[in-house]
Amino acid sequence: MSPAQALPAVLDKIDAELDHSLERLFEFLRIQSISTDPAYKDQCRSAAEYVAKDLSGIGFETSVRPTGGHPIVVGKGGPDGSAPRVLFYGHYDVQPVDPVDLWEAPPFAPRIAALPDGRKIIVARGACDDKGQVMTFVEACRAFAAVTGQLPLPITMMIEGEEECGSKHLFGFVEDNAAEFKLDLALVCDTSMWDPATPMVTTSLRGLVYEEVRLTCADRDLHSGLFGGAAQNPLRVLARILADMHDENGRVTIPGFYHGVSELPPDIRADLKRLDLTPENFLAQVGLAVPAGESDRTLIEQIATRPTAEINGVVGGYTGEGAKTVIPAQATAKVSFRLVGAQNPEKIRTAFHAFVRARLPADAKVEFKSFASAPATEVPFDSPALAKTRAALAAEWGKKALAIGEGGSIPIVGDFKRILGMDTIMVGFALDDDRVHAPNEKFDLTSFHKGTRSWARILAALAS
Amino acid sequence: MSPAQALPAVLDKIDAELDHSLERLFEFLRIQSISTDPAYKDQCRSAAEYVAKDLSGIGFETSVRPTGGHPIVVGKGGPDGSAPRVLFYGHYDVQPVDPVDLWEAPPFAPRIAALPDGRKIIVARGACDDKGQVMTFVEACRAFAAVTGQLPLPITMMIEGEEECGSKHLFGFVEDNAAEFKLDLALVCDTSMWDPATPMVTTSLRGLVYEEVRLTCADRDLHSGLFGGAAQNPLRVLARILADMHDENGRVTIPGFYHGVSELPPDIRADLKRLDLTPENFLAQVGLAVPAGESDRTLIEQIATRPTAEINGVVGGYTGEGAKTVIPAQATAKVSFRLVGAQNPEKIRTAFHAFVRARLPADAKVEFKSFASAPATEVPFDSPALAKTRAALAAEWGKKALAIGEGGSIPIVGDFKRILGMDTIMVGFALDDDRVHAPNEKFDLTSFHKGTRSWARILAALAS
Repeated sequence: MSPAQALPAVLDKIDAELDHSLERLFEFLRIQSISTDPAYKDQCRSAAEYVAKDLSGIGFETSVRPTGGHPIVVGKGGPDGSAPRVLFYGHYDVQPVDPVDLWEAPPFAPRIAALPDGRKIIVARGACDDKGQVMTFVEACRAFAAVTGQLPLPITMMIEGEEECGSKHLFGFVEDNAAEFKLDLALVCDTSMWDPATPMVTTSLRGLVYEEVRLTCADRDLHSGLFGGAAQNPLRVLARILADMHDENGRVTIPGFYHGVSELPPDIRADLKRLDLTPENFLAQVGLAVPAGESDRTLIEQIATRPTAEINGVVGGYTGEGAKTVIPAQATAKVSFRLVGAQNPEKIRTAFHAFVRARLPADAKVEFKSFASAPATEVPFDSPALAKTRAALAAEWGKKALAIGEGGSIPIVGDFKRILGMDTIMVGFALDDDRVHAPNEKFDLTSFHKGTRSWARILAALAS
Repeated sequence: MSPAQALPAVLDKIDAELDHSLERLFEFLRIQSISTDPAYKDQCRSAAEYVAKDLSGIGFETSVRPTGGHPIVVGKGGPDGSAPRVLFYGHYDVQPVDPVDLWEAPPFAPRIAALPDGRKIIVARGACDDKGQVMTFVEACRAFAAVTGQLPLPITMMIEGEEECGSKHLFGFVEDNAAEFKLDLALVCDTSMWDPATPMVTTSLRGLVYEEVRLTCADRDLHSGLFGGAAQNPLRVLARILADMHDENGRVTIPGFYHGVSELPPDIRADLKRLDLTPENFLAQVGLAVPAGESDRTLIEQIATRPTAEINGVVGGYTGEGAKTVIPAQATAKVSFRLVGAQNPEKIRTAFHAFVRARLPADAKVEFKSFASAPATEVPFDSPALAKTRAALAAEWGKKALAIGEGGSIPIVGDFKRILGMDTIMVGFALDDDRVHAPNEKFDLTSFHKGTRSWARILAALAS
């Protein structure tokens, strides 16, 4: 029985298994695998072991591979010799949960809730990003194995634990083991749908450069009464640097920043325009009304096709309750850049460092830390795998699957192309109101269920 | 025996009692009376009760008077009818201790240490500001009481617990009890010496306006991959506001900010110039080299006679270890202004609010919290009490006592003049390297010992 012939039974199995699938996802979600905070190292390891054990149960030959940081889970299964051989990439780590007091329930106690419009949702840190999404693929594999006794095609799983902190050991791992992972096609489930009814394949991703800037002036915190007016204040220096990063039209002012950024072809631009993304149907859901990016660009261009500079965090001086008249010794900012087209991450990093140094007055010193560096990546529009994937999604959702670029970054996708020579098909079931990286993260139950069914259809299509 | 006749025996008593004086100070320093953090409410009360008990032992009639916040200790003692009747003001509360990992020993475990130059120091939060300074006055009173059986003149003590968070209940307390505290002269021990060998009376203080600015954009934290480029970022808005507060010459740009700021008379300006305060002997001690204030003013003008705007704290977004690609919903800054001359705190507050609102783009909202509001204050140079105080200090230190303005703010001093009609003589023994408000705060043992002797001499002089 071919995977295509088995598909109806596999879809029935997925429907029948939904409650058990949720139980497995909840067990995964209870593990506090916050990768960016060293305090959660053991929990990250537990998450890796959970994934490995689960994959073994489906018939994958699994290993938990050590790195300089959190381990990478590798699983291999499926029939030998047939094509295409696919590499599925996902991550078991999650974002920090702060500010934790904004969560309506503990972030690692997953629960089913309902939105005012009746949609059922899974609420927990990682419910969507990326545990929930990874499990849509795993559950599709499990259903195939249960119905047919084997996976529909050769599948290698690569589930890492450092995506939320820059995947810094994954790049070396892929490079060191290129022969092992050089397959025919990569699949990733870490992206969004266009809207709750419209499936989407992501065909390009913005790159990312993430920098921490720490300024130091005096060698200790100072009393602003004694030293105010004479001592350099690193918060003032930092404010100047950060304010200078954009001009009054929202354009990034770092010299050379836009090198490698191309204008879209007119037809693609027209496609984007036809989507008619308005502030009302994109920004209003998070309490905003006016696009804040480059003033001469449409909203969809701002989020999908243009590079950005964002301030992700700032801290310095007294930030507790009440007042303290301190001139702090230090101030720190985290700044990230989303890259498109041929923007070069290293050149942008270098230009940013120079931009900061050019604004340092006497008595201010700077240290940089680099957390991520990845170029943008694109999938060709004429890929056969892309066509099969879109058709499979259309069959599940009853609606044409869009193929457009997305604003987020998945750094490893660029390396899959560069190191392994593989294209990556990115299919995901996240929605814009999923509160990804924020308190009360959720994943629609429909995304989870129909996402699993979607992967079953895609795997059957790719195997045929 | 008049106080002047008793003075030699009182000074001997102070010398003999030094170790016991230190034991009492250490007991006071062990109480974690951080007033700005509600978690330390009980400790603040303990500090008040400690002071009250100690004053009772010297013969003061004491009470711990409730306020809407931390209580105020009042003690009354000394002979009836004689003049001048003095009000001594100090505070038992201390600054927060963060960042606590920069302390070489626990901040509330006071200890004696030695500097490389051999100076002995008392190290603890509050060692100088203001517990150590308050105790110089208390120990002088104790020595007089021990030697003569009574205080040298009528003294009312007012030791509050909210100086480090804006003295917000003290103002109403003084207003409500004006008749009780309307005496002849106020004394305060919360200021500095010119240098370790040169005593100083502070004749003017800068005022203070302290504001918290909280900006809100989206109604939740956002993923910069999904929303970056389109969503307004409150950290970017805040950086622009804070950067705009100063021009390239270090001048504050808030409209009307310099209204009420007078130029110094030429002779006073010449006095200041003669002091020849250089970056080497003021800024170098904290690792700085270049005065960062208004570029057309000398260093001593910048710290003693000019108004300032400082950023005391900023926080927003992800500030933990590693990277998080978040666009935060909120960003907060604490900003304070040191005022001089006739600058009006309310007008400055209003102008600052307008300055912020004028820089709010679409989708940014602001909330303000006000923590302090006090005008600058000055003591007339021809005050007889000032002359007596300077002479007493000169006798103790063997060097002419300077009479100059200081950059810090003690908000209540303005109210002593406005509400009670009293001048305030400010004498203090802090040194520039005391790390006041910073980790490893210290007070020189010489400051404590000779400070106590200084107060004995001042009290004897004022009584004569």
